[in-house]
Amino acid sequence: MLTTRLDTARIRAARQVIDPLFLGSPLYRCVALEPGLGCAVSIKLETANPVRSFKGRGTEVIASAPGADAVVCASAGNLGQALAWSGRNRGLDVTVVASRFAPVTKLDRIRALDARLELVDGDFELARERAADIARHDGIRLVEDSLDIETCEGAATIGLELVDAAPPFDAVLIALGGGAMATGVGHVVKDCLPGAEVICVQPLGAPAMTLSWRERRVVTTDATDTIADGVAGRCPIPAVLDDLLRVADDAVLVREESIIAGMRMLLDHAGLVVEPSAALGVAAILEDRERFAGRHVVTIVCGGNVDPEAHRRWTGG
Amino acid sequence: MLTTRLDTARIRAARQVIDPLFLGSPLYRCVALEPGLGCAVSIKLETANPVRSFKGRGTEVIASAPGADAVVCASAGNLGQALAWSGRNRGLDVTVVASRFAPVTKLDRIRALDARLELVDGDFELARERAADIARHDGIRLVEDSLDIETCEGAATIGLELVDAAPPFDAVLIALGGGAMATGVGHVVKDCLPGAEVICVQPLGAPAMTLSWRERRVVTTDATDTIADGVAGRCPIPAVLDDLLRVADDAVLVREESIIAGMRMLLDHAGLVVEPSAALGVAAILEDRERFAGRHVVTIVCGGNVDPEAHRRWTGG
Repeated sequence: MLTTRLDTARIRAARQVIDPLFLGSPLYRCVALEPGLGCAVSIKLETANPVRSFKGRGTEVIASAPGADAVVCASAGNLGQALAWSGRNRGLDVTVVASRFAPVTKLDRIRALDARLELVDGDFELARERAADIARHDGIRLVEDSLDIETCEGAATIGLELVDAAPPFDAVLIALGGGAMATGVGHVVKDCLPGAEVICVQPLGAPAMTLSWRERRVVTTDATDTIADGVAGRCPIPAVLDDLLRVADDAVLVREESIIAGMRMLLDHAGLVVEPSAALGVAAILEDRERFAGRHVVTIVCGGNVDPEAHRRWTGG
Repeated sequence: MLTTRLDTARIRAARQVIDPLFLGSPLYRCVALEPGLGCAVSIKLETANPVRSFKGRGTEVIASAPGADAVVCASAGNLGQALAWSGRNRGLDVTVVASRFAPVTKLDRIRALDARLELVDGDFELARERAADIARHDGIRLVEDSLDIETCEGAATIGLELVDAAPPFDAVLIALGGGAMATGVGHVVKDCLPGAEVICVQPLGAPAMTLSWRERRVVTTDATDTIADGVAGRCPIPAVLDDLLRVADDAVLVREESIIAGMRMLLDHAGLVVEPSAALGVAAILEDRERFAGRHVVTIVCGGNVDPEAHRRWTGG
């Protein structure tokens, strides 16, 4: 019996309140990638929606709940943009706290969606502290990514779309940051297609959750050093780790050069511009071809909000 | 009563012989494009298949027919790659004749699929002549894009997927070259969703088929001058023009700078790398925003085989 904070019936219900623009994202075999990866690869394309990341699924669930008329969140960029989008459409006042080192593209899009944006002179963890201060001071809801169950349930609807697809897959590669997507999708896969392997992928330069998973206790790190800004946390949330321990078959760490090679493959062979976090799955295959040889692997391309200049620098020439 | 060389029942049958890798391509509202275009835009993504263009649908129909064990075609690049792919999978010997000025990417991919590639020192029309010579000399089947009904029927299966989608659309923008996609998709749309407008789009620098449609007789041109290599023909085929006259509500010509702006929008807002021909629909909206304002428009992103260097030059900076 799979016991996590998630519940598949509740996830199915969550799907009812999410704007269909975020549901049923493209899922397709990407044969053009396969010679380079040595296995059958399907892409779940979570960049083909209004906020170009999977986060809108969760923020739709949050914004559709009755009650709050103002919320604040810390964000590496994608959650903030998604919350701003959902909030604007549903009359919810949104404040986003982000690092001033976040990609300009992400910050610009948050502003463009009329959210209040506050920048902190530090990393994501400092933004979390500041968001909590604002929530306390203003008496508004603090949306905590991965801890708030709606963020996990929203991401988990990706899992429903994966397990409903034919043919079934052998493994799913999920970018691991705070853990909303990994625990959400992982829960559904373990519940509905238990034979499929759930593999989380994190950068070597931001390994806190993976180290925690391996040691079965919260391990924090002092700093992060990765271009995959979307998954660069240092302080795993205990309740999320508990769920991850129940649904993940493995958690792997990949090098920066593999992430870049993954972005380049997605660009050159799939014609997709993705942010570094979205290339973690491809990076994991590149680092361990033998493990995946001959299998059918799904990778969730989870976000496409990347500074064009940086993307060109990473993938060019 | 819609009378063209096409038949919707035959198109449904064609779907049965096409490798599922080419069917059910992603179709999604691309909200990120909409502020720039002023209308609701859905993308039909024909680059998410093994040959990164819609041509595989038609070549699958050709290669699944009994009889021929060797074929030759002229190609701007995408038909050749698709025929090589289908031929390799079904034991069909494939020769492709192309212009030596075709994008290197397209030529390389044809070679990589084990087809025999012959280059002519001229444009697509010269390649057509040379392919016909080879067919006569070797006694093998000449595959003629847009004339051979399988190429139209294959492309027409895109139309089935469009008319089956909900919500229905108001207009579909189709890149116009030889006419296989325009007559194929146009036939199905006019047959199944007659209220939707079928609009063909061609570059001003390669206007032969559009001029022919407007004058209701074949008009040839002496030269082409466009980056949209995939649609750069000069000599429309009479039977295809006849069909186009029955299914197209309009044929419009767009400027090169609009094609480039379209490619840049698809890159910056949709995260997609596409070849120039695939940006014709977006270019048409950019040139006539008023016409499309408030409507729901589908554009078929028909190919993604583009030299990376050229793409970077067109869209960069």
